Amino acid sequence: MNKNAWVLPDQLADVLPRQARTLEALRRGLLDLYRRHGYELVMPPLVEYTDALLDDTDDDLDLRTVKWADAVTGKTLAIRADMTPQVARIDAHLLNRSGVARLCYFGSVFHARAAGLLTSREPMHIGAEVYGHSGLEADAEIQSLLLASLRFCQLPGVRLDVSHAQIVRALLARAPQLQYDKDAVYSALQAKDTAALHTLTRACDEEVGSALLALVDLYGGVEVLERARTSLPPYAEISKALDELQTLATLDDSGALQFDLADLTGYDYHTGVMFTAYCTGMPNAIARGGRYDHIGERFGRARPATGFSLDLREVTELLPCAAPSTAIAAPWIMTPDLRKAVESLRAAGEVVIQLTEQHQHEEDEFVCDRELVLDAGQWVVQPIKAK
Amino acid sequence: MNKNAWVLPDQLADVLPRQARTLEALRRGLLDLYRRHGYELVMPPLVEYTDALLDDTDDDLDLRTVKWADAVTGKTLAIRADMTPQVARIDAHLLNRSGVARLCYFGSVFHARAAGLLTSREPMHIGAEVYGHSGLEADAEIQSLLLASLRFCQLPGVRLDVSHAQIVRALLARAPQLQYDKDAVYSALQAKDTAALHTLTRACDEEVGSALLALVDLYGGVEVLERARTSLPPYAEISKALDELQTLATLDDSGALQFDLADLTGYDYHTGVMFTAYCTGMPNAIARGGRYDHIGERFGRARPATGFSLDLREVTELLPCAAPSTAIAAPWIMTPDLRKAVESLRAAGEVVIQLTEQHQHEEDEFVCDRELVLDAGQWVVQPIKAK
Repeated sequence: MNKNAWVLPDQLADVLPRQARTLEALRRGLLDLYRRHGYELVMPPLVEYTDALLDDTDDDLDLRTVKWADAVTGKTLAIRADMTPQVARIDAHLLNRSGVARLCYFGSVFHARAAGLLTSREPMHIGAEVYGHSGLEADAEIQSLLLASLRFCQLPGVRLDVSHAQIVRALLARAPQLQYDKDAVYSALQAKDTAALHTLTRACDEEVGSALLALVDLYGGVEVLERARTSLPPYAEISKALDELQTLATLDDSGALQFDLADLTGYDYHTGVMFTAYCTGMPNAIARGGRYDHIGERFGRARPATGFSLDLREVTELLPCAAPSTAIAAPWIMTPDLRKAVESLRAAGEVVIQLTEQHQHEEDEFVCDRELVLDAGQWVVQPIKAK
Repeated sequence: MNKNAWVLPDQLADVLPRQARTLEALRRGLLDLYRRHGYELVMPPLVEYTDALLDDTDDDLDLRTVKWADAVTGKTLAIRADMTPQVARIDAHLLNRSGVARLCYFGSVFHARAAGLLTSREPMHIGAEVYGHSGLEADAEIQSLLLASLRFCQLPGVRLDVSHAQIVRALLARAPQLQYDKDAVYSALQAKDTAALHTLTRACDEEVGSALLALVDLYGGVEVLERARTSLPPYAEISKALDELQTLATLDDSGALQFDLADLTGYDYHTGVMFTAYCTGMPNAIARGGRYDHIGERFGRARPATGFSLDLREVTELLPCAAPSTAIAAPWIMTPDLRKAVESLRAAGEVVIQLTEQHQHEEDEFVCDRELVLDAGQWVVQPIKAK
């Protein structure tokens, strides 16, 4: 016997009954919400060939993915560190539709290294994706569904930051001097590090350099978009991006929308509008999403795609525990008449817990406020008397 | 691009929308059923230290478990191949109750090698466990909950085989000649291979030898228990085991109960009553369960335990696909009045799918039988006209 066999590795944890119930309720409510929007549920496997889960471009995902040589196939298998490529694979090859496909999913992913110091190595992702439509209608639907999801979870102080991958891309396309420094530029923008940006853009065309520096201050409400039109050069891609963000701003009635044109996490992946959601009590993003039209390419069938995912494990930890539900205590004996009485109460939706004399009631999830007792030969429910 | 990146390894598969809906409905219904019986939901992690998932005695589970050296902890981690040890760990250390604990769970497990030629490497287990009560009440509750689960799934031709681990154990305890041949005896019993049993029991006490041979024929309805009382020696452990089986027989009103005293799959694990469920269309067992009072030992706290699990992936594959639900088609435009109309229909529980002119409806899961159209400035729902 290993005395410490019950210890879990850091950043891995059980979800115990009271939190599990909250998590389960959110899971059901969100999947039902997506269904009412026409999203079909898919359940990809936990483990696949590494090639299907990773492409050559995403080093970060690669480092977070556990891989091993499979004894059966002789190939490298991996546990998914992200479900999005799996859902794209299903859209590209299994459903193989020519029109729009709306898919949703829920599942655990596993990370070889946690994304942050306080982050679980096993996030539980729930998400929704629209494939096959490049128009802004799809992005608007995803924005609205993400906001509806956050509302459903009743998270406090929700804020949705919106950005656009084409703005910086348009600037970098005109700065061949920066072709080997792209990652550094994105990092400096993310950190709003103007000193680093000054150094990086020294050799650039002045228009591009000052536009990259201007991005750092383009953060706030919808007025940011007006400021962006004057402080960024009038390239067609930038104007189109700002028009798209403007449309999304007019469609929002949550008051939670903000713009942060320098927030470009996931830039190597996204091709259009990008979403990052925050809430009170959580320094990291609680949900992310956006357009990533190239995801199907690795499967030989690139389709327009936009979607989001949120981590229900983190969401649940931010919420208060649900109150226990009431239950009926019953003796744990095996007579047919008691059994019938118990079964009919359960069929009516009651929780009935059978207990022995010696067994003290300890369930976290239930409070027995009534009991089933034998009264003149009949099993009847009555309030539990104070002792 | 890897042209075949979308291919999945053999014996791993996506659950696509129509099956996913059936699976999700079963999952919800069964977890609700367990809750009405007072079972609390737990969600253990996918991955743990190998020591917590395996003990030294179960070679079969060891071979089915994928393990790797963890870059973060420097220790060996593994993907669970079974959730039962995890739930026992939660009972033993996290809840740490002195009385009865009833726990239920749902989750994927992963197998390094599939259990059978046609079996998935990623079964999806749902199960229920009672800890802390050694009385037959707990076994009876588990038998009844397992039968209720199979009824809820509407599986065809359900049969529940009941056996008892103490019968063969009592015989082997009196056959020191067989101490190195126990596995061979269990295999011969399982295969009902009387020739092998004859050879193995040659050197045994005659009473024990003929009892082991008699087990092969102790298969059938409740009358088996009467036959067992005459053909097996009257050892106290055997009489007690037969009494327990007799009580379980009287409590069953499903008509699905059978006894197979030579069926001892999982014998190295079980300590009392054992259940194996079968149904039409499936050669392998669809659910297994029973008493295994030593499971907490590796965590330093052995508690009486009895429970069952079934594989919802296999169950779903046996069932017909659910019919698609009806839905309302709506144009995919972004005007506030349309948005309001769509939102109020969804709030009333309708599925509303927004479509463009070019986008042909292809969802497997929904049939649009109505559409939202603009009529005299109002959005109204009307039946879709045949074209």
